[in-house]
Amino acid sequence: MSFDTLIEKIDRRNNPSVIGLDPDTAHIPRHLLDAAIAKRGETLDALAAAAEAFCTGIIDAVCDIVPAVKPQTAFFERLGAPGTATLARVAQYASERGLYVIADAKRGDIGTTAAAYADGFLGSVKVGKQEIFPFRFDSLTVSGYLGSDGLVPFYDAAKKHKKSVFVLVKTSNPSSGELQDLVSDGTKIYERMGALLESLSAKNSGKYGYSPLGAVVGATYPRELYALRRGLPHTFFLIPGYGAQGGGAADVVPAFDKDGRGAIVNSSRGIIAAWKKTGNDGTDFAEAARRAALEMRDDLARARCV
Amino acid sequence: MSFDTLIEKIDRRNNPSVIGLDPDTAHIPRHLLDAAIAKRGETLDALAAAAEAFCTGIIDAVCDIVPAVKPQTAFFERLGAPGTATLARVAQYASERGLYVIADAKRGDIGTTAAAYADGFLGSVKVGKQEIFPFRFDSLTVSGYLGSDGLVPFYDAAKKHKKSVFVLVKTSNPSSGELQDLVSDGTKIYERMGALLESLSAKNSGKYGYSPLGAVVGATYPRELYALRRGLPHTFFLIPGYGAQGGGAADVVPAFDKDGRGAIVNSSRGIIAAWKKTGNDGTDFAEAARRAALEMRDDLARARCV
Repeated sequence: MSFDTLIEKIDRRNNPSVIGLDPDTAHIPRHLLDAAIAKRGETLDALAAAAEAFCTGIIDAVCDIVPAVKPQTAFFERLGAPGTATLARVAQYASERGLYVIADAKRGDIGTTAAAYADGFLGSVKVGKQEIFPFRFDSLTVSGYLGSDGLVPFYDAAKKHKKSVFVLVKTSNPSSGELQDLVSDGTKIYERMGALLESLSAKNSGKYGYSPLGAVVGATYPRELYALRRGLPHTFFLIPGYGAQGGGAADVVPAFDKDGRGAIVNSSRGIIAAWKKTGNDGTDFAEAARRAALEMRDDLARARCV
Repeated sequence: MSFDTLIEKIDRRNNPSVIGLDPDTAHIPRHLLDAAIAKRGETLDALAAAAEAFCTGIIDAVCDIVPAVKPQTAFFERLGAPGTATLARVAQYASERGLYVIADAKRGDIGTTAAAYADGFLGSVKVGKQEIFPFRFDSLTVSGYLGSDGLVPFYDAAKKHKKSVFVLVKTSNPSSGELQDLVSDGTKIYERMGALLESLSAKNSGKYGYSPLGAVVGATYPRELYALRRGLPHTFFLIPGYGAQGGGAADVVPAFDKDGRGAIVNSSRGIIAAWKKTGNDGTDFAEAARRAALEMRDDLARARCV
């Protein structure tokens, strides 16, 4: 699915938010872990099964509210091959429930290697006469330290398969400025990265004006977000840092264009670990996630209409 | 295994080279693909089995010559869960044959997410009372666009498990300069990245003077390599770009310290696809790889003693 489809999903739900699926063992309620270990022993298979039950439970609880989910690949890869199998199933499940699915993998490489990542995450692999889709993702996050050699293969794959890519521009973490804020010839490094995205893809923008090359810009840097929105009119934003990382709804308002489009705001822990704040034992994790997702939707709506 | 162990393996074989295991379907000989498809059908399982036969064949052919191999994760991930299972088995196999095994995954993230990658690739995962090692890698390549938040968790894991990390500093591709060569306050971005590595880890250097935080520096930029060797005395280098990408043995000489240590030079296609130049059908892929690995060893030795 392209950004056009994502934008229509956002419009229909009036909710530009995405839920990060980070199945860190610390966030998975005890009863899911116990059940998986009882069935599969103390194995990676058990942890992967618990992660799957957790993620699909969250998906069921929020799929009528949010337009998108963002599995964080690290928490699946950490479980080896069983984790990768779970990642593929979670992506498929989310897709079947009508969600736009973003692989937060921050991949980055060049040439045929980058193309191999793009085939796996966004495209397909040929085996004899068969065309197989290893994962069902609509979008992939990418790191651009290697320059355009590392972006073009992902962009080409996104165009070909009508999908999208989000490139790290200004990240939400405290030390993001160490490299990204350095000034060269009057321009910051993250601004250069953003300009590179626009120069590669602006001509290929869809129905709502956005190209398949999006950008990751943190909610924790609202001034930068404001300037980037003005400077990168064809670049759709994925905004981490809302909620647990400290960004508020007012901080992300500048990310939207005059039609209220152009960005999607992520929350991970704030939604999936909301059960930890209910005082219960975690058996209510899905309901807690739903309530938190509704609060986030309403919080964003209120801030955007002021 | 730490860099100390890698250095001793290099010394013993008098060969600072590493073979990149990139099981791109285009590099796998026909007979391996046919055999796998005959047994498993036109499936990802078949491609993964062919990739495994290819990689283990190369490992058998070179394990007495080279100290290290570097599986490129993209070509495994492209095959979904069967590819990840193969990646784990190839790493295990290489490790059992006495090789230092570097996961070329170029991962990059922050906090618990970075720690999850580090657990999976370099460390272990707890399940109940069990401690499970999802992959048996000695080292991992990492992208540092996020700043020190994205490096410290990997460094901590490397220290804890006596392993290592290679951070992208000056990459070998033609467009690497777009970002990496930008000058800020008189210093290039890649020089800043290198200085960040030294500042984080110089105090934690091993027997031969190298810390667990290494750097990726391309053979295709010999002047930069020379300056980085002088500027980063505690940083061990992984050098891609030799062979197919255009770097020669003379280009990599400046990467070594006064004792002839401090760097390892990678070749992927030049070794694993050497069979394509023999005029045969690929059934000789392992012998062709062995000959190419011996040539590379001798080429590097000749250049280093001049």
